[in-house]
Amino acid sequence: MNYGIDIWSANNFFIENGKLKINYGNQPALIDIVEEIEEKGIKGPILLRFPHLIRKQINSLYTSFNKAIKDFDYKGKFQAVFPLKVNQFPTFLKPLIKIANRYNYGLEAGSKAELILAMAYNNKTAPITINGFKDKDMIRLAFIAGFMGYNVTITIEGLNELKSIIEVSGEYHKMPVNIGIRIRLHTSGVGIWAKSGGIESKFGLSSTEIIEAIEILKQHNMLDKLKMIHFHIGSQINDISPLKKAIRESGNIYADLRKLGAKNLSAINIGGGLAIEYSQWEEKRDKNYSIEEFSNDVVYLLKEISNKKQVPMPDIFTESGRFIASPSTILIAPVIELFSQEYSEKSLRLKNKNPDLVEELFDLYDTINENNYIEYFHDALDHFESLLTLFDLGYIDLIDRSNSEILVHLIIRKALQFATARGFKNKELKSINEKIQEKYLANFSIFQSLPDFWGLGQRFPVMPLTKLNITPNRSATIWDITCDSDGEIPFSKKNPIYLHDVDLSKEKYYLGFFLVGAYQEILGMKHNLFSFTNEAIVSFDEEGNHQIEFLEPTQKIREILIDLDYDINEVEWMLKENIEKNIKNEEEQKEILGELLLLLNDMVYLKD
Amino acid sequence: MNYGIDIWSANNFFIENGKLKINYGNQPALIDIVEEIEEKGIKGPILLRFPHLIRKQINSLYTSFNKAIKDFDYKGKFQAVFPLKVNQFPTFLKPLIKIANRYNYGLEAGSKAELILAMAYNNKTAPITINGFKDKDMIRLAFIAGFMGYNVTITIEGLNELKSIIEVSGEYHKMPVNIGIRIRLHTSGVGIWAKSGGIESKFGLSSTEIIEAIEILKQHNMLDKLKMIHFHIGSQINDISPLKKAIRESGNIYADLRKLGAKNLSAINIGGGLAIEYSQWEEKRDKNYSIEEFSNDVVYLLKEISNKKQVPMPDIFTESGRFIASPSTILIAPVIELFSQEYSEKSLRLKNKNPDLVEELFDLYDTINENNYIEYFHDALDHFESLLTLFDLGYIDLIDRSNSEILVHLIIRKALQFATARGFKNKELKSINEKIQEKYLANFSIFQSLPDFWGLGQRFPVMPLTKLNITPNRSATIWDITCDSDGEIPFSKKNPIYLHDVDLSKEKYYLGFFLVGAYQEILGMKHNLFSFTNEAIVSFDEEGNHQIEFLEPTQKIREILIDLDYDINEVEWMLKENIEKNIKNEEEQKEILGELLLLLNDMVYLKD
Repeated sequence: MNYGIDIWSANNFFIENGKLKINYGNQPALIDIVEEIEEKGIKGPILLRFPHLIRKQINSLYTSFNKAIKDFDYKGKFQAVFPLKVNQFPTFLKPLIKIANRYNYGLEAGSKAELILAMAYNNKTAPITINGFKDKDMIRLAFIAGFMGYNVTITIEGLNELKSIIEVSGEYHKMPVNIGIRIRLHTSGVGIWAKSGGIESKFGLSSTEIIEAIEILKQHNMLDKLKMIHFHIGSQINDISPLKKAIRESGNIYADLRKLGAKNLSAINIGGGLAIEYSQWEEKRDKNYSIEEFSNDVVYLLKEISNKKQVPMPDIFTESGRFIASPSTILIAPVIELFSQEYSEKSLRLKNKNPDLVEELFDLYDTINENNYIEYFHDALDHFESLLTLFDLGYIDLIDRSNSEILVHLIIRKALQFATARGFKNKELKSINEKIQEKYLANFSIFQSLPDFWGLGQRFPVMPLTKLNITPNRSATIWDITCDSDGEIPFSKKNPIYLHDVDLSKEKYYLGFFLVGAYQEILGMKHNLFSFTNEAIVSFDEEGNHQIEFLEPTQKIREILIDLDYDINEVEWMLKENIEKNIKNEEEQKEILGELLLLLNDMVYLKD
Repeated sequence: MNYGIDIWSANNFFIENGKLKINYGNQPALIDIVEEIEEKGIKGPILLRFPHLIRKQINSLYTSFNKAIKDFDYKGKFQAVFPLKVNQFPTFLKPLIKIANRYNYGLEAGSKAELILAMAYNNKTAPITINGFKDKDMIRLAFIAGFMGYNVTITIEGLNELKSIIEVSGEYHKMPVNIGIRIRLHTSGVGIWAKSGGIESKFGLSSTEIIEAIEILKQHNMLDKLKMIHFHIGSQINDISPLKKAIRESGNIYADLRKLGAKNLSAINIGGGLAIEYSQWEEKRDKNYSIEEFSNDVVYLLKEISNKKQVPMPDIFTESGRFIASPSTILIAPVIELFSQEYSEKSLRLKNKNPDLVEELFDLYDTINENNYIEYFHDALDHFESLLTLFDLGYIDLIDRSNSEILVHLIIRKALQFATARGFKNKELKSINEKIQEKYLANFSIFQSLPDFWGLGQRFPVMPLTKLNITPNRSATIWDITCDSDGEIPFSKKNPIYLHDVDLSKEKYYLGFFLVGAYQEILGMKHNLFSFTNEAIVSFDEEGNHQIEFLEPTQKIREILIDLDYDINEVEWMLKENIEKNIKNEEEQKEILGELLLLLNDMVYLKD
C-alpha cells in the first residue's frame, strides 16, 4: 500500500526506509522535520509550507505554455496572475511574490482587501487583474494602483461597473487602468465548481451586453482601454473538452470585438481551473489531461481562430490558483487515540441464569463451524436485534446486553474467519468485514483545516509519515477532536484506507494531509474554538539543506477569546474573582490562580 | 405572499402597512431599526441580535418541561445548559448569561477555550457540563472550575478519559467534579446531523465499556461521583420517534446502573436536538412535533421506566442550543443590484443581410400566434443552438449572435404569454417560465454569514423588510458579493421565492435572513476577505421602547489584514513607497496617499 503516492504526489514525495521523504535537496523525511519542530516545544497539528513546491508549479505553468507557444509558432505572449482568494496568508504569499519576480507573475484581487495586498506586495512590472463585484471605492483603489505604475486591468462583471469606472475616471481626469470584460459563455462549466460558467452563471456579460459595453466605451472615447476579455469555467476542470469549447467561443468573441474597433484588445484571460490530482485511487482520478495537453489546446485553438478571422493572436492570460497553491502545503496531525470495538471472551459476565436468547447466542458461538457459519451468523444478528428490543422494554439488563454485544462480535469474527478461507462468497459478511473499522482520533479540526471536505466532500490525500515498510492492516476512519459528528473522514468499502496498529503509549503516529494549500486556510472555521494550527515554512538553502525558516505556534486560548472580541482583562478578572470567592486558603488560592493563568496561555488543541 | 412567516416566525414578527415588524414592546419595524443604524454612518450587512428572543426560548424550554413534570407528577427536576459551540460570541453570550440567572440555566463546553468562557461567565449555581475529547489540561481546568464552586460534570467519551480523570484527581488529592458517561445508543440518529447517534457514532461507550467504567470507578472508590448519563441523537431532530426509542434505551441503562451500585446517578442528559422550524413552505416543514410533545414524551417515558424498574425518577438534563440561539439573530443584507436578462426589440442590430437562421428567427417572432406558439418555440430553441455552434465555428459574428439572443428571448416571452392564457399546458414552457429568474445581488457573503447553507444546504427563511403590501412578481435567486459561484442561493421551481421589482437608484431594498443565531458566526469563513458584518444588539426597556444597546461596525480592511498576520506598518510602508516612487508631484503624492490611507480604513464589504 503506497497510499496512491504515484497518483497524487507528482513525484514531490517518495518512500524510503519506511519514511515519507521530500524529493528535493537533502531529501529530509517529513517525520524528521516534525520532530525537529516538536523539539522546540511545539505540539498539536502543524501546517508545513514548502516554497520550493510553489516555485515548481509556477515554473511548470510558464514552461508548459511557453513551450506550446514556441512549438506552434504562436505570436502572443503568455502571462499569469495568482488569484489571492486562493491563499492570502503572508506565509504563503510572501514566498510566492519572491518566486514570481523572475516570471513577472502577477496577482488577481476579488475584493478591496485583496486589492490592497496586491498594491502593497505585487512585483512592480507584474500584472494586476481585478475581478468580482466592485463599488466605487474599489475602482478608486484600482486607479491608485494604476498611479503607482502597476499594469492594472479591471474586469467588469456588469454594465453598471463600466459606468462606475467612467465616473471615477472623471474624478481623476485620468484613466490609468485597462478594462477587461467578463464574458458569459454558453458553454457550461464542469466539476464541483460548475456554476462558474454557462448561461445561468453568476458572472459575465451576454453578447448583447458586450456590444452595449463597446458602444458605451466608444461614446466616452475609451475603447482603446479595452485590453482583455475574461472567462472562467470552473475551479477544478476535470475534463478538457468544455475548455476547448470555451476557447473557441471566446476566441471568436475576441476576433469580432477587434473587428468592432477594439484595436487594443490583445488578451484572452482563460481564468483558472487547471486541476490538481487529489485522488489516492487510480479509478477515481480527478482529471483526464496533463498541463502539456492543456496549454497545447489553448495555444493551438487560439492560433487557429486568429488565423481564420485574420486578427493578431492574443496574449494568453491565466488565473489558475489551485494548481499553484495546493501542493505547497501539508497538514500534519498527530493520532492521539485509537478506538476499536474488539471484545474478548474474557469480558463476558455470564450469570448463573441468563436470558434464553443469550444462552442461544452462547451455543451459536460454541458450535459455529465451516458448514453452518452463514446460518449461525444470521441467527446471531436476529437474536441481537431481539435482545436490544428486550433491553429497551426492560426485560433484560445491562449485563445481559453487554454479553449479547460481546457474543455477537465473537460470532461475527469466527464467521469472518470461515468466510475468509472461502474467499468471501457471502455478500453480507463481505460487507461487514469492510465495515469493521478502527477509528483514528487525530489532533486537528476538519472544520478549521479541511473545510472543503465538510462543504464539498473534497477528498485530500492522506497517509502516515512512518511505518511505510510495514503492511498496514487496519481499515480506518479518521476522527477529528471537535464535538461534531461531521468531524469524521469516513472511507468507503470501495476505497478504504489502511493504517497501522500502533501502541500510542509507546510510539507516535502522524497522519499527513496533502495538497491543502488552496482555499483551506481562509475558509477555515473556528468550530468549538479550534483555530489556527502551528505553522512552519521549510525551505532549502543553496547546498540543498532544509531549514525551518518561520515557526508560529497554534493559537492560544487567550488569543481566540480576544479574536471573538472578549475583553481579556475582564475574563481574567472574572476568573480571579471566582477563585478568590471560593478558595479561602491564600496559598492554595495563589497556586490555583497561577495554574489557571498558565492554562489560559495553553494552545486551543489537545496536548496528549 | 407572506414568505411563510406563519410557519417559521413563531409569532416573533408580523406584517403591518407593508413592513415587517417585531412582535414585542413598541413593535418597531425592522426597516426603521436598520435606518436608525444607517443614520449613524453604518453601511453594509447588519447582524441584529434580540435578547428578548433568547429569553422567550429559554422560558419556553423551562415552562414546557416544568409543566410536563407537574402534569405527570414527575419526581425528578429539569435542568438545562447552553452548549457554547452554538454561539460563543460575547454579544450573544453575555445577554444569555443575564437571562439564564433566574432559570439557573448553565453552560456546556466542548473545548478548553469554551470551558474558560464557562468558568468566567457562568452563573455561580448553574451547572457546567463538559463534553468532547479531553486532554489532561482540560480535565485540570474542569477541576479548577469545581474548586471555584461550580457544579461541574465531566462527560467521558471513552475509558481513557476516565483514567485521566483519576490521574488528575491524584494530583489534587480531591475530586471536585461529577462524572458523566456518554452512552452509545443502538438507536440511530436523525436529520442532517444523523451521525451523532447510533452504533457507528463518533461518540460514546458501548454497554460493555459502560460496565468496565463502573468497575474502574468502584476500584477507585469513585462510583459515588457518577452523576449523569448522556446521549445526543442529532442536532436538529425532525422526527420525534427516534428520540422516544433513545429515551427508552437510556432509561433502562440508567436504571440498571443504579442497580449496579451507582447510587448517586441521578440525571439523564438527553443532549440537544430540539428542532427549529426553518421552512418557508408548508410542505417542507422541518419537524413533526411541538416542544410540548417533546417534553411530555421525555417525562412520561422516564417516569414509566423508573416505576417499572423501581428506581427514583432521574433529573432531566438538556443541551439544546439551536432551539435557544437561532431565533435571536437576524442578518440584514442590502440589495445592491438586480441582474435581469430582459431584451427589447430596440436592442436588435439587424444588418441588411443577416444569416438565414437569424432571418428565420425574425420570421418566427413576427408570426408567432396562439395556434403555433409551441411549435415556434421549439423551432426557436433549435435555431438558437445551431446559431451558437455557427458562432463558435466562426460562421456568424457577435452581432448576429446578439440578435439571435434577443430574438429567442422575445419569442419565448411571446410564447409564455400565449401559454399563460391557456394555463401552461406545455411542460417545457412551464419549466422555462419558472426558470426565468431575476438575480438579486445582496451585499453580504454566504460563506461568512450562512456557512451551513454552503456546507449542508441548510435553508434559512428569507424575506424583504418592506413592500409587503405589494404582491412581488419577480421569481428570484440571491447572489452574494464573493467571487465564488457557490455564493448563490438558488430557488427551485417547486419552492420559488418572489421579490419586488425595485429601482435601486430611487429606493433601498433589504433582505432579512432569519434564524441565523446558531453556529453561523463561529463557522463563518473569510472567503475573499469578507469577514464580520456590522452587529447591533436591540433590546427593549421597561416601557417597551426599543434601544440600540451595542453597535459594532463591520471589519475594516486594515483589521482583516492584521488578522491574517500581516504587519500593518509594513503594508502601509510598502503602499507609501509605491506611491512615492511613481508620483513625482508632491502635492499629488500627498493627496493620493491620504485617500489610500482612508480607503485602508474602509469596510471590507461594498458601499453602494
